[in-house]
Amino acid sequence: MNAPLAIICGGGAFPLAVAEAARRAGRQVVLFPVRGFADTSVEGWPHVWIQIGRFGFLKREMRRLGCRDVVFIGNVLRPRIRDIRFDWTTLKLLPLAFSMLRGGDDHLLTGVGRLFEEAGFRLVGAHEIAPDILVPAGQLGAVAPERRAMDDIAQGRRALAVMGPLDIGQGLVVMNGHVVAVEAAEGTDLMLARVAELRANGRIKAPARCGVLVKQPKAGQDRRFDLPSLGARTVEGVSRAGLAGIAVEAGGVIVADAGELVRAADRAGIFIEGFTREGVET
Amino acid sequence: MNAPLAIICGGGAFPLAVAEAARRAGRQVVLFPVRGFADTSVEGWPHVWIQIGRFGFLKREMRRLGCRDVVFIGNVLRPRIRDIRFDWTTLKLLPLAFSMLRGGDDHLLTGVGRLFEEAGFRLVGAHEIAPDILVPAGQLGAVAPERRAMDDIAQGRRALAVMGPLDIGQGLVVMNGHVVAVEAAEGTDLMLARVAELRANGRIKAPARCGVLVKQPKAGQDRRFDLPSLGARTVEGVSRAGLAGIAVEAGGVIVADAGELVRAADRAGIFIEGFTREGVET
Repeated sequence: MNAPLAIICGGGAFPLAVAEAARRAGRQVVLFPVRGFADTSVEGWPHVWIQIGRFGFLKREMRRLGCRDVVFIGNVLRPRIRDIRFDWTTLKLLPLAFSMLRGGDDHLLTGVGRLFEEAGFRLVGAHEIAPDILVPAGQLGAVAPERRAMDDIAQGRRALAVMGPLDIGQGLVVMNGHVVAVEAAEGTDLMLARVAELRANGRIKAPARCGVLVKQPKAGQDRRFDLPSLGARTVEGVSRAGLAGIAVEAGGVIVADAGELVRAADRAGIFIEGFTREGVET
Repeated sequence: MNAPLAIICGGGAFPLAVAEAARRAGRQVVLFPVRGFADTSVEGWPHVWIQIGRFGFLKREMRRLGCRDVVFIGNVLRPRIRDIRFDWTTLKLLPLAFSMLRGGDDHLLTGVGRLFEEAGFRLVGAHEIAPDILVPAGQLGAVAPERRAMDDIAQGRRALAVMGPLDIGQGLVVMNGHVVAVEAAEGTDLMLARVAELRANGRIKAPARCGVLVKQPKAGQDRRFDLPSLGARTVEGVSRAGLAGIAVEAGGVIVADAGELVRAADRAGIFIEGFTREGVET
């Protein structure tokens, strides 16, 4: 375990949260920020900038630095093929890459994981390194969900349970038992903005503080990649959409700064509830 | 069958298409346009304007005019309770109405249907009166779907099949096997606008003319209300979203002006395919 941990860093606050957790646990780390996505704040750490499509370079650098375990964390949007400059190693993998790009996100990420494992690295989930980033079970802030919200949560979980196997979204909005928005390629923030807009133009009629954002990982999703996440910006979106709160699967959704999240939710009067997988009513 | 057919008219072109079909079939009609939704062009026909929340008035007028069969057709958005002026008959039904408003659209419409049947009217599907408004099976215009599009259609149908029982949307967009947008409260037009936007900002990466809009009624949906519809505006939205075509369930989706639809699709180079329920691959 003296080998430094390789952290492939996408955008957002998560990469440094994970790096700090690993360092606190006494682990050496090397960051591999992805150009175009990762924040320059990674430069305060041992790091090597990398580019999508240059897997050969990354593999050599990871070996040179003695890395064996590797973590993927942060946002990286699926790139347009013509924007990628491939190196030879990657070019040889292209037929495989193309077949992966045809599937949903899950296939792509599972494929990327396989490539690393075939090259001799061990893929580790960010939450294994930094368990503190996982949302715990129960009520998180000062506000508790009301009875009606609990019903909405149950309905949202039923809907996500049937959609997950089809690799569709990790989130939706339920109001009074009615699913009013489903998240797919647009992501949570844009889905919440849509709900706010549909309320403003009268297309959704519901009293203020009604409805819940429900998020959980897709069934069968490889949790070493791309767990759904939550942050102060989510709280803002939920507040603008006039919802009562947020419900996420405990242990299945990550938060970079839990303190900031809870403060934002309390200020906005919004509940955050971590539900456990066992408790699904059907 | 000499009793005039009552047509409760919401917005859009469908009410007159149905009225004309009924008249062509030798049937007398009386239109009951809903104030705030129906177009004033209904005034060229025998008509009585009605208001949401005034079911007692409607019932009396339908009886006075000797109507027995009643058709619902056209768009009526779910109203905000405080915007409705109820009459006594409706007020007495309010506890029932509130329990209906808590459910999804299906519950609401099924409940409305029950009220009419309890009052002695017979609810008829618009497509029973005007079968021509139903999309037929097979290729509709000049453009045929390619192999890749057929795969996307199959994937979209699988996804809609699992979502329908949960009363979620009647439509979605599939690209390369990946569901990139799911329609819920926003409706088809806004979903298509979203896909166009996600393409424009690079969030969805796919070549032009890739992807399919798939629509079908929800499983168990009462087809006497609210069949999904298609029109020239849908073609416009599909074209702006850069999709290859539209696939809808034959006999399960309505079109007010099929000629106009096909001309628009041909001009835009977009396919329209009516699939049959039997052909679902799972």
